[in-house]
Amino acid sequence: MEENNVITIYKNKAIVNFEGRDFLGQIGIDSRIFNALQGAGVSVGVISQQAIENGISVLVDEYQAETAVESLRKEFEKELKSGIVSQIYSIDNLAVIGLVTDNFQKILSELQKNKIFPLLLNQVASAGRVNLVVSDNQLDKVKNIVETEIFGKVKTVHLVLVGHGNVGSTLIEQILDSSYDIQNRKRINLKIIAIANSKNIVFNKGGFGSDWRQKVLFGSSENTLQDLFQFVKENQFENLVLVDNTASKDFVKNYPTFVENGFDIVSSNKIFNTLPIQEYRNLRKTLDKNKKRYLYETNVGAGLPLIDTIKLLHLSGENITRIKGVFSGSLSYIFNNFSVRDEKFSTIVKEAMDKGFTEPDPREDLSGNDVARKLLILARELDLINEFSDINIQNLIPENLGGIAKDEFISRLEELDAEYQFIKESQEPNHVLRYVGDLHGDLSQDKGILDVKLVSVPASSALGQLKGSDSIFEIYTESYGENPIVIMGAGAGAKVTARGVFGDILRLC
Amino acid sequence: MEENNVITIYKNKAIVNFEGRDFLGQIGIDSRIFNALQGAGVSVGVISQQAIENGISVLVDEYQAETAVESLRKEFEKELKSGIVSQIYSIDNLAVIGLVTDNFQKILSELQKNKIFPLLLNQVASAGRVNLVVSDNQLDKVKNIVETEIFGKVKTVHLVLVGHGNVGSTLIEQILDSSYDIQNRKRINLKIIAIANSKNIVFNKGGFGSDWRQKVLFGSSENTLQDLFQFVKENQFENLVLVDNTASKDFVKNYPTFVENGFDIVSSNKIFNTLPIQEYRNLRKTLDKNKKRYLYETNVGAGLPLIDTIKLLHLSGENITRIKGVFSGSLSYIFNNFSVRDEKFSTIVKEAMDKGFTEPDPREDLSGNDVARKLLILARELDLINEFSDINIQNLIPENLGGIAKDEFISRLEELDAEYQFIKESQEPNHVLRYVGDLHGDLSQDKGILDVKLVSVPASSALGQLKGSDSIFEIYTESYGENPIVIMGAGAGAKVTARGVFGDILRLC
Repeated sequence: MEENNVITIYKNKAIVNFEGRDFLGQIGIDSRIFNALQGAGVSVGVISQQAIENGISVLVDEYQAETAVESLRKEFEKELKSGIVSQIYSIDNLAVIGLVTDNFQKILSELQKNKIFPLLLNQVASAGRVNLVVSDNQLDKVKNIVETEIFGKVKTVHLVLVGHGNVGSTLIEQILDSSYDIQNRKRINLKIIAIANSKNIVFNKGGFGSDWRQKVLFGSSENTLQDLFQFVKENQFENLVLVDNTASKDFVKNYPTFVENGFDIVSSNKIFNTLPIQEYRNLRKTLDKNKKRYLYETNVGAGLPLIDTIKLLHLSGENITRIKGVFSGSLSYIFNNFSVRDEKFSTIVKEAMDKGFTEPDPREDLSGNDVARKLLILARELDLINEFSDINIQNLIPENLGGIAKDEFISRLEELDAEYQFIKESQEPNHVLRYVGDLHGDLSQDKGILDVKLVSVPASSALGQLKGSDSIFEIYTESYGENPIVIMGAGAGAKVTARGVFGDILRLC
Repeated sequence: MEENNVITIYKNKAIVNFEGRDFLGQIGIDSRIFNALQGAGVSVGVISQQAIENGISVLVDEYQAETAVESLRKEFEKELKSGIVSQIYSIDNLAVIGLVTDNFQKILSELQKNKIFPLLLNQVASAGRVNLVVSDNQLDKVKNIVETEIFGKVKTVHLVLVGHGNVGSTLIEQILDSSYDIQNRKRINLKIIAIANSKNIVFNKGGFGSDWRQKVLFGSSENTLQDLFQFVKENQFENLVLVDNTASKDFVKNYPTFVENGFDIVSSNKIFNTLPIQEYRNLRKTLDKNKKRYLYETNVGAGLPLIDTIKLLHLSGENITRIKGVFSGSLSYIFNNFSVRDEKFSTIVKEAMDKGFTEPDPREDLSGNDVARKLLILARELDLINEFSDINIQNLIPENLGGIAKDEFISRLEELDAEYQFIKESQEPNHVLRYVGDLHGDLSQDKGILDVKLVSVPASSALGQLKGSDSIFEIYTESYGENPIVIMGAGAGAKVTARGVFGDILRLC
């Protein structure tokens, strides 16, 4: 007799709650309640009575809520006075959504992810019949989610992109290029509803298209984060994802607020994961509490499946005993070339700058801080509680060149040549230089040993074989013994980083 | 007023269902129902009425069920005759579990995974109060699951291990060794409740310990799969996992039956994934329908994170354009050594046999079938619908040595020497031989090109650098261009394979 896949909606409803203890379930109480309501001419909908806990809720039309409460208060006047019935009251502005589904749990899970907790839900599971009672002002959002699940409607994921520099703009182009394919293959509509930079946030309710640059450029209004949260709330957007492609130290402080406002987070920004361990852990707790996820595969090795692999190995009880490798594309290029070519160190560094492998100020690479951050992020995946200050970093820039202006540094690059020529020539035969991150020590303890340093390795070793600007990661584990798992490939670049961020976004869908 | 974390259980309950349409919610119907029940002296518990669908269910003590049904049939005699009320009946042998939880969805999900669908569930979500009505004979199982979720009780996972050869017995030892740690770190108790070989299945309700070999050896009773399903049902075991460490062609036919009986599957056995595509897809449908998972990371590259990586890349919309590599530990060893050492081919093959790298009959490796199976499994991860017969396999054994007995083959191994010596010497300078699997062609079509063959590659290439018995996988994708993702390491051996299987088991927990 049931019609499948029909969603019925009743608006302008109210719940009347009747609370007491130790007497519900007694013979006669139910009929007193319903007789009182009948006497007052109140029509009753969903009824939910708890067998063991002590309450009964009935659904009525909003215009009858007051009558219903009054009639019950009159009927139970004595019990209210004596305290056996603790309170009788109504909650207004409600809507009921009735549906038939064989995957109630999925719907419930999607609702929870979107921070919707029905006031009352009521299911006869064997028949797949479900009633949800929600606030009127959540109705559109709930309807969208339910329709997506029941009718296989295309699921819309709403993206807020922060940062539209090299990686950010490449990502936007990749998303716009693939959106048709993804909608067809996975029935997911990726909609970019906001693009932000350090100065402004530009909204677009309908989703940005190929003219996004102009719209961002001419987005005149000055919007704040509060405006953003207001914007997504007003429009009842579901499936919210914050994508951070900045390197901002300040912006990451907003992550917990985004999570509390219903956002999952995808980030290529390494900063948050290198904050003091307390903040690192607090965000994880906030995520757990809000059932949100935070993905950052591109923090280390760009799109290489590194974080995920280490996470899975660790989770699966494999004891990881050491992680070692070349984590930086620019330093990979510099030492792969300097080791085998008969050129001055400064010449190779300038070459790397010209090819766009380094940051504008190459000292950001040569300081070792970027490699150190990546090493720390990997260590923390193993539940180690190391801090950034625990890392032994070999800074490749002598102190006297550290504090000067960028242009002066570049003009004095040749001052580095003698030292690195000496290091190169002091190696054993058939050895090459590599700038490595190395996590070792007894990793079953609270903290590991984190070294970031220039080393000389046999040219025939896996590290020694590294070419171009590739990254390499050697993961040593108990079962693999001396034979590490090796993951290698392009570990930097806007294209592979953006693709990695894109992958994380799709993992959330 | 509520006590948190208390589970209350009422047994010997019945549900009385009252079904009709188009009149429920009318004023007066509810009070007629409850007056009739009151008049018959029936005490009513959980009430679930559907606002939009057409039914009302009330919970009563089992001994009053008949009275309740009769009193309602009498009250609604006229409506039953006219068909407005379609039926009134009771379901007996029920139990109610009442609990307070803030993670109802998790409990519901765990119940569904264990194939428990409450007859009636009833929640006031805002208060976290939940009542579940289930069959009396599911009560223990439900209680275990609910306690695990609410009290953080240790979760017991029940393992049925099929095959206790090299990998199987190593796995049992690894599980027994780690069980204390895993219980402490993850609050998971891995209990091996059955161990099977081709002849028998031995049960152990309390879980096998370090004396498992004796118990399996002296397990005299002849048990069948039906006995196994009966055994897990009688004992109401939740969280069931089948672990297949055989290479049996026959046993895999039972996978769908296991899934239908509530098992997840972990398998190092490659056979199922190389069956005709229709069977391959049917199992996936059965898994979806039963919300079960099937993990087989060790099918390719033993414990290397390969299947998972390819799955994630593909899922995340990255276009994989080619997968190429050395997939076999034994053939890796043979050609890594033959290429650079001045020895006869037969000498190297015998060496590989002595070191235990090959199957007892080395033709199983040299035929290329094992590499072909792995290549097919990877292709199917990309949604390609290739069949085993589509693979171009270069069999390293000449036809006249293919059909003879194993011992004769080994005694005539030297007949291979001339051919492989010629192949080796015909290479360009600084090249080495590798036996590779290669998936290429336009992988956006239905089928790819699958080649399994001996090739000559530059000694300086990634493939050419391979050492020992390591496997290497090069994954070419759109974003990475000419620069593949490389995953390398021990791709065979009982220890790393068992650890990979163990990882899959823990992924399910």
